[in-house]
Amino acid sequence: MAIVQCVPNFSEGRDLEKIEKIVSPLRGKEGVKLLNYEADKDYNRVVVTVIGEPKAVKNAVLESIGVAKDVIDMNTHKGQHSRFGATDVCPFIPIKGMTMDEAVELAKELGEDVARLYDIPVFLYECAASKPERENLAKVRKGEYEGLDAKFEDSNWAPDFGQAKKHPNAGAIAIGARKPLIAYNINLDTPNIDIASSIAKTIRHSSGGYRFIKAGPVEIPERGITQVTMNLTDYSKTAMYRAFEAVKMEAKRYGVNVMGSEIVGLCPMEALVDCASYYLGLENFSLDKVLETSLME
Amino acid sequence: MAIVQCVPNFSEGRDLEKIEKIVSPLRGKEGVKLLNYEADKDYNRVVVTVIGEPKAVKNAVLESIGVAKDVIDMNTHKGQHSRFGATDVCPFIPIKGMTMDEAVELAKELGEDVARLYDIPVFLYECAASKPERENLAKVRKGEYEGLDAKFEDSNWAPDFGQAKKHPNAGAIAIGARKPLIAYNINLDTPNIDIASSIAKTIRHSSGGYRFIKAGPVEIPERGITQVTMNLTDYSKTAMYRAFEAVKMEAKRYGVNVMGSEIVGLCPMEALVDCASYYLGLENFSLDKVLETSLME
Repeated sequence: MAIVQCVPNFSEGRDLEKIEKIVSPLRGKEGVKLLNYEADKDYNRVVVTVIGEPKAVKNAVLESIGVAKDVIDMNTHKGQHSRFGATDVCPFIPIKGMTMDEAVELAKELGEDVARLYDIPVFLYECAASKPERENLAKVRKGEYEGLDAKFEDSNWAPDFGQAKKHPNAGAIAIGARKPLIAYNINLDTPNIDIASSIAKTIRHSSGGYRFIKAGPVEIPERGITQVTMNLTDYSKTAMYRAFEAVKMEAKRYGVNVMGSEIVGLCPMEALVDCASYYLGLENFSLDKVLETSLME
Repeated sequence: MAIVQCVPNFSEGRDLEKIEKIVSPLRGKEGVKLLNYEADKDYNRVVVTVIGEPKAVKNAVLESIGVAKDVIDMNTHKGQHSRFGATDVCPFIPIKGMTMDEAVELAKELGEDVARLYDIPVFLYECAASKPERENLAKVRKGEYEGLDAKFEDSNWAPDFGQAKKHPNAGAIAIGARKPLIAYNINLDTPNIDIASSIAKTIRHSSGGYRFIKAGPVEIPERGITQVTMNLTDYSKTAMYRAFEAVKMEAKRYGVNVMGSEIVGLCPMEALVDCASYYLGLENFSLDKVLETSLME
């Protein structure tokens, strides 16, 4: 049986009543499992993780996108995270028994539905992108909600589905397909953001580091520390322990120590088991030797 | 719903056809899931892990014990692992929604059935033991198959079920209930068994080490190395990484290095995730952030 994961991000992180309305279509549906949702007040955004049978997930998420359009007004939305729509992004991640091409197909089906039913213009991104310059979400979203009118004047930015015209309160939406990623932050015992920034540069792909690390610096003023914040975009090729050890190794140059790390959102079991396997030097180990908790449910 | 795990060990590790016959009753039954079986040629033994609804698991394992009795002849059995029966040991481990007392009850029911249907004498061990000196499996099995006639002459060793007389080709069986354990071996880059033995002594409970480690030395002549072989009998209290780091620490005294380690049979996901969490110094982490593979089944 094919299983897809979907991680829609909605532009509401403060009003719990609205958030409940948005996730409500993801509950209690055959073939759909709502795994997690994490609202962030500063970002004013909620990240939802849902998993299940592809068509069932797509249809449930379509409903949530409809609710988000009805309860979110982008004209008054403020938050620290860039965004251009009530449902801002909606990636599909093939998990089991399906190919990336099939996830792309699912993204396109959802895109068609969203444009047709809700009059929201849709951009396809990452593996679903219709041209190379739309692969990178940051480029697609550039200008944010407030810049949509200008964006649509540029014929290069005609949406993949729907009219070249923003929805009056829901803006636009980026729908895509991608590999699973891990949002991973490593804490440094220094308040000096320049050090975090220098370390981030050494490990990230864009400036010469590991192929599947995106990284930047973050200040955590209330703790007097800084973070190297990362997306591990293919943990099967750039492992979590490798990012961790690389940051430790670079921090030495500044006499700085790694204090620990944190995972934001969900983390695939394989990535963690791989870390245990590395640090314990496990021989002859494979995932089928792991007795999962949910096997017992 | 109550879930029990059962890990029967059968005295056949070479003849794949016989092994298939033995595990066959554990396949395709409602409420029973065969998770894993690992045959070891040197030990001439197969360790089977099955999980599911208590009565269903008990009945399926009962069938397998019957098959083992039919296809294994202990009179010609040779192997490096101590053993006294065709089905040598059969522990039940309460996993979910059941108490240890209920697992003990299940062990007793299986014991009665085995004695009545197959004429195999049954010893209850660990939490199911009828007296303190039967708790330790090593003591129950002492003398092995070849010593059974002598054992049954001693009235202290009357079986818990069945006659005080070995089955002519299947010997005896130890049936019990226990907590989940991890069979864990750590490899040392020395052929000197005395060093492995000294290290084992420092970490095991019986000679002053960690409360939930049983350990001993093993030689791996074909690799020119030795092992500290362990049972971690409560990984929630004596963690796997702790055993690993303790062996590393002790090995230093002899100028010996830890080369790696191995897990025999299945390992609960929590134990591995805990290792990843320790080595990565994860903050704010909990098991509900792990995206399990089988959630996707």
